[in-house]
Amino acid sequence: MTTDQEMLAVAVEEARAGLAEGGIPIGAALFDPDGVLLGRGHNRRVQDDDPSVHGETDAFRNAGRQRSYRGTTMATTLSPCWFCSGLVRQFGITRVVVGEAQTFVGGHDWLAENGVEVVVLDDPECVAMMTEFIAEHPDLWNEDIGVD
Amino acid sequence: MTTDQEMLAVAVEEARAGLAEGGIPIGAALFDPDGVLLGRGHNRRVQDDDPSVHGETDAFRNAGRQRSYRGTTMATTLSPCWFCSGLVRQFGITRVVVGEAQTFVGGHDWLAENGVEVVVLDDPECVAMMTEFIAEHPDLWNEDIGVD
Repeated sequence: MTTDQEMLAVAVEEARAGLAEGGIPIGAALFDPDGVLLGRGHNRRVQDDDPSVHGETDAFRNAGRQRSYRGTTMATTLSPCWFCSGLVRQFGITRVVVGEAQTFVGGHDWLAENGVEVVVLDDPECVAMMTEFIAEHPDLWNEDIGVD
Repeated sequence: MTTDQEMLAVAVEEARAGLAEGGIPIGAALFDPDGVLLGRGHNRRVQDDDPSVHGETDAFRNAGRQRSYRGTTMATTLSPCWFCSGLVRQFGITRVVVGEAQTFVGGHDWLAENGVEVVVLDDPECVAMMTEFIAEHPDLWNEDIGVD
């Protein structure tokens, strides 16, 4: 079985890839009920000039059309924003593995209240990556989360 | 000033275009505080084999990167699902004009509870378009809203 840490590791690889491209370092990966990778991706706001591509939406898109998300797990380096939390709820993604929820708090508690299994790993590398990024690029970060 | 009905009319044009392409007939359009069109789009699940492109996310993407969504209005032919409602909430889109909320109830009440100005127009053409589509393509519709 694929462990939560192994799933998060794929998301972290995606976040690092995004950072190396000059982008916002948030990555995600979607796994099927057996722990097999369906899709992985990262925030592409800067790279594609596309505000709709967060880490989770990119992983979801790259997984292609699925008839059901029952039993799937979305691993993400950061607490999912409302947009990405809404994605999880609408499509019935069953579990969310969150790297950290210290540098940003999205909708992970709301997901838990609505029946999604949420695991927050408090991963130090995820915290460090976002802390550094936000300090260096506050305007870009605020743009990505809709803060004026 | 652009009226709510005029904004909805752009979303309806998009929905019709999607239907003509063999897709799911849901369209949306994002307007700036002066009623100027920023972006318009429609559901592209079938056309692009992309589950992440709902009407609202397509309009949002086509509007390009915006530093602020304060004062903007999203017009959509159908009550926005949780994914699209999360988009509205995260980015601080101020108003949502909904064509109809009879054939599907998404998160528009949740948005209203969280400070978004929501107008539901009960537009007969929007109702007819979705009623007919759902009757003809129930599997595709269920796939689009994550119903097993």
